[in-house]
Amino acid sequence: MGLPKIVVLGAGFGGLMTVRGLQKQLNHQEAEITLVNLNPYHYVTTQLHEPAAGTLDPDHTRVALESLINRDKVRLIQDKVTGFDPKEKVVRLAGTDEPLAYDYLVFALGAHTETFGTKGVFENALLINNLNSVRMIREHIEYNFARYQASDVKNEDLLKIVIGGAGFTSIEFVGELVDRLPYLCKEFDIPREKVQLINIEAAPTVMPGFDKELVDYAVNYLSGKGVNFRIGTPIQEITEDGVILKGGEEVKAATVVWNCGVRGNALLEESGLETMRGRIKVDEFLRAPGYEDLFIIGDNSLVFNNEERPYPPTAQMAMQQGQHLAKNMVAMLRGGEMKPYRYAPKGTVASLGRNVGIGTIGNNNKKVFGRKASLIKKLIDARWFFILGGFSLALKKAKF
Amino acid sequence: MGLPKIVVLGAGFGGLMTVRGLQKQLNHQEAEITLVNLNPYHYVTTQLHEPAAGTLDPDHTRVALESLINRDKVRLIQDKVTGFDPKEKVVRLAGTDEPLAYDYLVFALGAHTETFGTKGVFENALLINNLNSVRMIREHIEYNFARYQASDVKNEDLLKIVIGGAGFTSIEFVGELVDRLPYLCKEFDIPREKVQLINIEAAPTVMPGFDKELVDYAVNYLSGKGVNFRIGTPIQEITEDGVILKGGEEVKAATVVWNCGVRGNALLEESGLETMRGRIKVDEFLRAPGYEDLFIIGDNSLVFNNEERPYPPTAQMAMQQGQHLAKNMVAMLRGGEMKPYRYAPKGTVASLGRNVGIGTIGNNNKKVFGRKASLIKKLIDARWFFILGGFSLALKKAKF
Repeated sequence: MGLPKIVVLGAGFGGLMTVRGLQKQLNHQEAEITLVNLNPYHYVTTQLHEPAAGTLDPDHTRVALESLINRDKVRLIQDKVTGFDPKEKVVRLAGTDEPLAYDYLVFALGAHTETFGTKGVFENALLINNLNSVRMIREHIEYNFARYQASDVKNEDLLKIVIGGAGFTSIEFVGELVDRLPYLCKEFDIPREKVQLINIEAAPTVMPGFDKELVDYAVNYLSGKGVNFRIGTPIQEITEDGVILKGGEEVKAATVVWNCGVRGNALLEESGLETMRGRIKVDEFLRAPGYEDLFIIGDNSLVFNNEERPYPPTAQMAMQQGQHLAKNMVAMLRGGEMKPYRYAPKGTVASLGRNVGIGTIGNNNKKVFGRKASLIKKLIDARWFFILGGFSLALKKAKF
Repeated sequence: MGLPKIVVLGAGFGGLMTVRGLQKQLNHQEAEITLVNLNPYHYVTTQLHEPAAGTLDPDHTRVALESLINRDKVRLIQDKVTGFDPKEKVVRLAGTDEPLAYDYLVFALGAHTETFGTKGVFENALLINNLNSVRMIREHIEYNFARYQASDVKNEDLLKIVIGGAGFTSIEFVGELVDRLPYLCKEFDIPREKVQLINIEAAPTVMPGFDKELVDYAVNYLSGKGVNFRIGTPIQEITEDGVILKGGEEVKAATVVWNCGVRGNALLEESGLETMRGRIKVDEFLRAPGYEDLFIIGDNSLVFNNEERPYPPTAQMAMQQGQHLAKNMVAMLRGGEMKPYRYAPKGTVASLGRNVGIGTIGNNNKKVFGRKASLIKKLIDARWFFILGGFSLALKKAKF
């Protein structure tokens, strides 16, 4: 009725943390909370490389929103956000002509794929974006293995997998593929040595920005498992047959996965806000410049470190922001003071398949390798499920 | 050196029964036995509809030949037979220029797909022919479900499955699909009612030649599970988009499985033998007319009943023939008398998914339905594994 309307867009790490913070801290009389999400479930973006490779059941990476949201306090709308107007203070949805009005908007819809002008990305490449797209990757690879084996004329390109980009998620995906391939080859009676994994990266190193010793560890490990790295090699175009590298060389492959980075959500630019590569440089309270009622968290928020360089978008930051924002909004609604947000990095760990990893942890960026890093990574995953659903969910989803 | 050379082509029901009969009854000094097979394994043709639908791991339907053959007595050649010359008494193989000479040839290579002149069968339809082709069917269906779900624009044709032919195996395949679909739909978040199974048959009835009461049972059961039967409807052409029926109606479907019957193996016609729809009308000792040294068993042998009508090709007959032939060859090599072969039908049972079936058993063709028929079908499958590998294999492969 007269209650302030809070609308949260997206049930990813940031959006969920916000909604769950709000539903815990606010009572019925303080606000009207609405969560809008495309799917009836939350999925764990940082695990998508596993169902993509087929090493994890996609169901394992998702949780029904029903079980995460207090429906007495939060209204759940399952719909696609098609736009929003920060001046009119409305959100537009695909499923209804009725605009959704808000007093406070939390934009937590996640990033979009960055193509860097490469042609054919959306037409011919597969993407590690959501549950539907990663199921597609798994099925695409299996289908081509089946096609290879069912055909009298053997087309070796069907067994080639190109991964465009060798950043964090790509390396994790390659690590899973390396684990999966022996099983896949056995399933389809294909000799392992016939399958080619080619990881192509424009930057002069794998995992740009990561510690060199960790990168070398990853490259050595994955090369030893047969991965062919082509570094300092930009992809110019993705075709139906594979990729064309800068300079014109063609690498044929039935499967091309594009994973070269993200840019801000297109809805932000379309709303007329000023963006930097699609993202919004938020103020210390995570607000879009010039707006008191528009919060941007997660992959779309640009947050700078002391050296004025932006932090890369991570699940860790999204979670922190969501948690922080919920507290701030509660304070704000109750006439209190909001506190400025500062990112507190706790380390970064990448998995290289099921039992190997690399990373840095703690304030002093201690390096971890191998089995130990892998274990820490699993703990990080389990911690998120613990936050969402306590011991029972953490145990159900754990991969130890 | 001077030993008679017996060459058996194909390790299906018939070929395996022959070779195993020979290796058991003959000693080293009596013959040189060679088995030629495309794969290093035997697979159970009569179970292929299950891995095709994805209800059974393909590995479950095969057994390594290594474990079935006594390598002290039988030479195993894994190769593709490209032809044979019954006058020169040689077999030609894909992997070598050296012809394989024989004194006695057992042709047990199995049947080929019958198209009845329908266009596009080999180009655009999937076939229930071997492990590779049925893995392809499973992957094809899953891939199209993934494509449907990953795409913003929903193409309902991706969820349509046309089965051309409503004979014995087709009905068994449809039964498995009906069982699999709920799981498949859950896996890809697709509502079951969006998926269409369309079974098209040229004849005026489902399962032509089967008892009407059994057919009605099958049709009622499968219709109740959402299968759309189109009977008396010949398919004129299979295209990239689906099928075109006689009269011009188009049924669009991403998946078309063609299973309208078999004809004799093309190698028989190519060898210059006289065939009827590719099959050979064998004499009472299972020999090709005019040849004392060429035995044709299994799907390629035409055997007539008392009313001079040919028995349909079945695994049951192939097994009986292989067993009978081995005994006859042993007698022949030892200077004894061969005995004429007579088919002794023991009934026919078709499964309709995991727990339902229909069939006739025993000399009086007693009808069985439902769970009981399903159980008998599983016993028939288990019996074959028992013959091949005793209790341990039967238990390993059993599906109870």
